[in-house]
Amino acid sequence: MPVPTISYERGEVRIIDQTKLPLTREFITVNTEEEMWEAIKELKIRGAPAIGIAAAFGVYLGIRDFNDHDKEGFMQSFNKACAHISTSRPTAVNLFWAIDRIRGLVEKNRDLSVEKLKERILHEAVQMIEEDNRICRAIGEHGVRLIRNGYSLLTHCNAGGLATAMYGTALSPMFRAKEKGLRIHVYVDETRPLLQGSRITAWELLEAGIPTTLITDNMAAFTMSQGKVNLVIVGADRIAANGDTANKIGTLGVAISAREFGVPFFIAAPLSTIDMRTPTGADIPIEERGRDEVICGFGRQTAPDNVRVYNPAFDITPSQYIRGIITEKGIISPPYDKNIAYVMKS
Amino acid sequence: MPVPTISYERGEVRIIDQTKLPLTREFITVNTEEEMWEAIKELKIRGAPAIGIAAAFGVYLGIRDFNDHDKEGFMQSFNKACAHISTSRPTAVNLFWAIDRIRGLVEKNRDLSVEKLKERILHEAVQMIEEDNRICRAIGEHGVRLIRNGYSLLTHCNAGGLATAMYGTALSPMFRAKEKGLRIHVYVDETRPLLQGSRITAWELLEAGIPTTLITDNMAAFTMSQGKVNLVIVGADRIAANGDTANKIGTLGVAISAREFGVPFFIAAPLSTIDMRTPTGADIPIEERGRDEVICGFGRQTAPDNVRVYNPAFDITPSQYIRGIITEKGIISPPYDKNIAYVMKS
Repeated sequence: MPVPTISYERGEVRIIDQTKLPLTREFITVNTEEEMWEAIKELKIRGAPAIGIAAAFGVYLGIRDFNDHDKEGFMQSFNKACAHISTSRPTAVNLFWAIDRIRGLVEKNRDLSVEKLKERILHEAVQMIEEDNRICRAIGEHGVRLIRNGYSLLTHCNAGGLATAMYGTALSPMFRAKEKGLRIHVYVDETRPLLQGSRITAWELLEAGIPTTLITDNMAAFTMSQGKVNLVIVGADRIAANGDTANKIGTLGVAISAREFGVPFFIAAPLSTIDMRTPTGADIPIEERGRDEVICGFGRQTAPDNVRVYNPAFDITPSQYIRGIITEKGIISPPYDKNIAYVMKS
Repeated sequence: MPVPTISYERGEVRIIDQTKLPLTREFITVNTEEEMWEAIKELKIRGAPAIGIAAAFGVYLGIRDFNDHDKEGFMQSFNKACAHISTSRPTAVNLFWAIDRIRGLVEKNRDLSVEKLKERILHEAVQMIEEDNRICRAIGEHGVRLIRNGYSLLTHCNAGGLATAMYGTALSPMFRAKEKGLRIHVYVDETRPLLQGSRITAWELLEAGIPTTLITDNMAAFTMSQGKVNLVIVGADRIAANGDTANKIGTLGVAISAREFGVPFFIAAPLSTIDMRTPTGADIPIEERGRDEVICGFGRQTAPDNVRVYNPAFDITPSQYIRGIITEKGIISPPYDKNIAYVMKS
C-alpha cells in the first residue's frame, strides 16, 4: 500500500512531512489554518493535486473552531481563511481551483447554519481525497494490464502517491501490480536538478515493498540498450489535444531512447491534465528556473561562478513517441487527435 | 589558450591543482617525487594522458638531486622512484606505460653518465608533453573543419585539456575555433554522477574565453530538439575495431538524441584509443562503480538507505550513431571496419 499524503481521521488532519524524506518518515498533525499555510509554503506537502486538497483542509481548519451562530462573523472568518491560504503557494493552479470549489459550495449553501456549513466544507475536502483516490486507482487498474510478471519498469521524476492524495499516476499501476502479487522491479531516474526520483519516487516504491534501483538520468539509455527495461511509465504536467506531452525535463530523452530500443513508453495522467485548448506541444510554455538548482544543487557549488545555465523545468515529448496515455477512463491509443477528442467528449 | 595541466619551465614542474576547480585556479610547483606521488594520489592531476606525464616527471624528480657519479646508487634511486610512483594510482594504465617508457630509455642508455641519464629522463618527460600536445593539436586542426562561425556545440564529460597535457581531445577543436576567431558557444552536460562537465569542462571553456552554458544531462535531448545545437563532439575511453565507442555514461543517450534531431555526432580521440583487439562494443567490459556516487554525491544523502543503485561508469555508443572519429591523422568516416583498419595500418 502506498503512503497517504494527507488524511482526515478521528477529527485530525495528518500529512507526511515530505521535507524529511527520504531519510525520515514523519507524519504530522496539522491543527490550524496557519499550520497548513506553513506546511504548503515549506513544501511539507507538494504536488499539484495534493496541494489542492491541502488548501481545502486549510480553509476548513480556519473555520473549524468558530463556535458561534453569527453567520456574518463566520463568513468573515471563512473569507479570511480562503484569502490567506491562497498566499501559501501563489503559482499553484490547483490551490486556487480547490479554494474556488469550496467557495462555490459555501455560496450555494449560504442559507445553511454555521454548523451545517462547517460540515459541508469538511465533507467537500474529504470528497477531494476520495475523488483523487478513485481517479488514481482507476489509472492503476487500467495501467496494470500492461505489466506482466517479472517486468522491469522505468520511471522519471515523481508521479507517485506523494504528488496526489495517495496512489499517484505513473506509480499507481506499479502499486496495483504489487497488490496483485506480480513480481516487478523499477528503475528510477534520479531526475536532476531537484532529484524527485531519488528523494521521493524511490522512497515511495520501497515503502510499498517494490524492489527499486536508482540510476542517474544519463544511465537510462544504456540501461534500456541492454534489454533491462520492459516498460516505461511517466506522468504528465500538461497534455495537448494532439497527445504531445509536457512533463519533467528529461522525459523526452527517455522517450526517444525507449523507442530506439523497442521499449513501450506510456504516459499516465488524469483526464484533467489534457488541455483541449492547447492544440500541440509547441503551444505549451516551458518554465525556465534559476541557475542555483544546477550549479549548487547538493549543498556545494559544483560549477564556475561565471557559467551560464539553461534550466527548463519541463520538456515536450511529441506524441509519436508515446505508445498510449493511461487515464481513469482507459488507455488512449494513437491516433491521438481523434481518440483524445472522443474520450474527452464521452 | 587552454590552461596547461603540467609544464616544465625554468627548472620547475608545475601543475594546476584540479581539486580546487572550479572555484579556484591555483598552480603549484611540485618539487619532489613524494609531492608528485601525493598530487596523483589526491587527484590534483587526473586524466589518463596527464597521469602518464606526471608519473614520468615524478620519476625525474626522484633522481634530479642525485649529485654523485655512483651509477649503482643512481640506479637504486631510479628504481625506487619508479616503484614508488607506480603505487600512486595503481589502476591507471597510462601511469605504467609512462614508467615503462622511462625504464626502457634508461635500460637502452645504461652506459651513459649519471648526469647524461638525468638529462635524458627529463628530456623524455618533456617529450611526452610535446607529443601529447602535437596529437591533441592535430585533433583540433582536423576537428575545427567541422565548425562554422556561429555554431553551438554540445559536449559531455571532460575530454578537455585537463585530462591531457593541455589541449584535450573533444575540446581541442573548440579551442582551435576560438584561436581562429570563430564565434562559438558550447552546451556542457554536467555529467552525473561525478560532474566532470560542470566542475572541469565548463571551467576550461570559460578560461579559454568560450561562452559556455551548463545543462543537466537530461536537458540535452530537449536542447537539441529545439534546434539549439549544431554539432556534438565527445571523447572516448576505448574504440573497438568496428567503431563502437566506450565513453562516459550518458554518451549513448546524447548520440541517440543527436541522430533523432539531425545533429552530427563526432568522437574525438587519439589513435591510441582504438583497440584493434576489441572487435565490437560488446567486447568492452563496463566498470560498475559504488553506490555512494549516486546516493550521496555532494555531501548530502539524497536517496533512501535501502535503495539499490546501478552505476555503470561508461556506456557503449554503437558506431551507427557516430558521424566520424576525429583523430590526429584526420577524420575517420564510416564504414569504420574498413577505414579504421586502413588508418591504423598507414
